[in-house]
Formats: sequence, C-alpha cells, structure tokens
Amino acid sequence: MTRKLYDLAGADPERRFSPYCWRAKLALAHKGLDVETIPWRFTERDAIAFSGQARVPVLVDGDNVVFDSWTIANYLEDTYPDRPSLFDGHGGRALARFVNSWVDVTLHGALIRLVVLDIHDHTHEKDRGYFRESREKRFGATLEALSADRDQRVVTFRQALDPMRLTLKAQPYLCGEAPAYADYIVMGAFQWARCISSFQLLEADDPVAHWRTRMLQLFGGMPGNAVGYAA
Amino acid sequence: MTRKLYDLAGADPERRFSPYCWRAKLALAHKGLDVETIPWRFTERDAIAFSGQARVPVLVDGDNVVFDSWTIANYLEDTYPDRPSLFDGHGGRALARFVNSWVDVTLHGALIRLVVLDIHDHTHEKDRGYFRESREKRFGATLEALSADRDQRVVTFRQALDPMRLTLKAQPYLCGEAPAYADYIVMGAFQWARCISSFQLLEADDPVAHWRTRMLQLFGGMPGNAVGYAA
Repeated sequence: MTRKLYDLAGADPERRFSPYCWRAKLALAHKGLDVETIPWRFTERDAIAFSGQARVPVLVDGDNVVFDSWTIANYLEDTYPDRPSLFDGHGGRALARFVNSWVDVTLHGALIRLVVLDIHDHTHEKDRGYFRESREKRFGATLEALSADRDQRVVTFRQALDPMRLTLKAQPYLCGEAPAYADYIVMGAFQWARCISSFQLLEADDPVAHWRTRMLQLFGGMPGNAVGYAA
Repeated sequence: MTRKLYDLAGADPERRFSPYCWRAKLALAHKGLDVETIPWRFTERDAIAFSGQARVPVLVDGDNVVFDSWTIANYLEDTYPDRPSLFDGHGGRALARFVNSWVDVTLHGALIRLVVLDIHDHTHEKDRGYFRESREKRFGATLEALSADRDQRVVTFRQALDPMRLTLKAQPYLCGEAPAYADYIVMGAFQWARCISSFQLLEADDPVAHWRTRMLQLFGGMPGNAVGYAA
C-alpha cells in the first residue's frame, strides 16, 4: 500500500508550486511518513473526482481520502499520534489555525501580485487559459497589470512579515525551538514563490530570510532541493 | 501578603486603559489569582523604580517583581502550573508569542490613530505633556492630524482583523473552544479602545464583535464592567 498525494505541477511535472501542497508535504515529512506525489494540473479534475471536490492537495492514505491542507494536517496528527507532533498540544493546534488564516489572508494577499505572472508562465499549456481567466476575474485586472509594480509592492509584502520578524527575535521558529506545522504553513508561501519565480522576496539580512534558509535544509534538504529558483 | 499590579490609569483613577495591563489582568483572572491593582500614571516613574524600569504592568507577587506583559504571562504559567493553563501546551505558548507580535505590530499599528486623541483627553493632566510630546515625536504628526481621518482609517483596522475573523469561523476563540492568553492579548487592544473612546471600531454583525461580547462577559463581567464606553 503506497500513500499518495496529488500535488499541483507546472509544465515541468517536477515543478511543484502549490503552497497548500507544500504544507501537506512538509507535514508528512515531519511525521516521517513516506508518500508518492502525483503531479496534477489545475484542469485535471477527473483525476481527483474520487475525492468529491476539485482541488489539491488530496491525500490517499490506505482507505482514507483526505483533502484540504488544514484537514490533512489534523488527520495526520490524529492518525499518527506516536509520530512527532505537528502542533505540540491543543493550544498549538488552535493557534496554528490562526497562523493558517494569517498566511491565507495577509501573506498570500501580499504575495500573489509579486508572483502571479511567473505562476502563469510555469503552468502547463493546458492550464493557462483557466489560470489567467480565473485569476483575472478574481482580482479584476490582467496578470500583467497585477504584477507591473512588484518592485514597489514587495515593500508591502516585507512589512506584512513584521509580526513574524518580531517573533523570530525571541525564538528560532514560530513553533518555538524547533519547526512544526505553523512554520510549514508560512514555508508553503515561500515555496510557492521559490518554485516558480526568481523575484527576490526578502533582503539577505532579514531574520525571515535566515529562518527560510534553515527551513530549506529540513528533511535532508527536501524543500531546498525542489525544482525552483534560488531566490 | 497582597498581590499587586501597577496599572495605567487616566485622570479618573478607575479608568484603566493600558492594553498591556489588560493582558496581565485577564491572565491573573484566568489563573484565578486575586490582585490589588494600583492606579499609575505615565509620569510616576518613581513609584515603580523598584522594578528597575519605567513601564507598567508591574506585578509584585510576594518577593517576585515581574514586568512586561509577556514575561508576566509566562511567570504566571510557570509559577502556578496547577491553575488553568494560559497556553495549553508548548505549541500554544510559542504561537501565543506570534499573536503577541501580530497584535503589537499590526493591530495596535492600525488602532492607535483611531484612539490616540481620546487617550490624550483621558490622561491625567500631569501626563498630557509627556503623552503628546512622546507620541507626536514617534508618529511624526500632531495627535489631531493622526486621528483626523479615522472614519476612513477604521476600514484598515477592520481589514487587519481578517485573519482573526477567518479563524472565528472555525472555532469560537483564538485558543479554541475556550479563551486563553492569545485571546487576552487581542482583548487588551479592544479594552484599550473601549476604556477611553466612544468611537465604533466594529460593525455590529462582525464575528469579531460577537467574540468581543463574549470576552466582555468573562470573569463575572470584569472586562465589561470596567470604566469605559459601550463601543
């Protein structure tokens, strides 16, 4: 029985850039659970129709089919309680939910304009029409217009990280002395960008950049070795 | 032996508006620990000189003198481990630190302009010169200019709460099924405003407003009964 994760891929099937899939992959690695990742494109709805919905990540673990990154993290925590904890207690689980919301709303909101055109350029040809149309409708602007002023807008993204920066003055990871799921949520956002864009998000001396460097080295360098850019 | 907390007060000694002191008072109440609060004004540095610094909250607990709201919360958690937990595990403590940073930077940053003139108007006469001078220097504008466009700026404050709003769709409190220290950190910001300002921060149907209503009723209505406004 092989554990499987449907994982968003670009034109290059090895380019895996979904922030939500990265949360799941890092959570699986934290639990020490092997997984076979299956490249999946936005328009391959039939391939995951068995899950009853149309988005990745989808985890197939024996007879269990689990989708949505937050649900997957909770499934892994509850199904494999003897493996290293993703939350380190009930309080950690509840507040990881807040970090999840903060990343979804604040961090992704500031990041999407910086990388949306790069995402488009790396998506599979068959996905590009869907991607452009759905994102331009969501944001009310062309992808080119959205990303035109990214050299200015990156300042807003860096400011959005201030609460994390302040936290990292007191402790090496969001989750304390060692990384856990809340760190993986944020790292998903950086992997999203890193796998499809050479745009420099962080200044070299930023404490968040130092944190990211340590995160890239986790699990034998798994996040850092993924197909992407050095930025 | 009486436990004492030096607590920022306005011209009315019963008007207690420091967000950091509110964190400490709510943490003490959560632990079920009695405390005598001592009204303190910004310029009464001599009164707390024994703590080796010049800010409140300062907690005097037997032979222990503890200052800084985060340090006080950790002191209470570690000194009274048999009382209800403020963090509910190591993960909860680490991520409460992130919430602390988010409130200090993002939430207070969006809130201060809405209430800074009201704070000034409620401070003790002897504090007003210090308050105006220090805040105008920090923000590079007069208090009047800072708060002039608050009817527009309140939109930014409400948007800053989006991650919390999204979290409250999934669980009744930031800390899960029951409130704990991360909720008190945010509540400190709302008490700061409520004790000195009639300005309406939240729309009535906002999930954050519903959360605040529940928070006001905690500990026999202690936060809600504090001298302040109904807003």
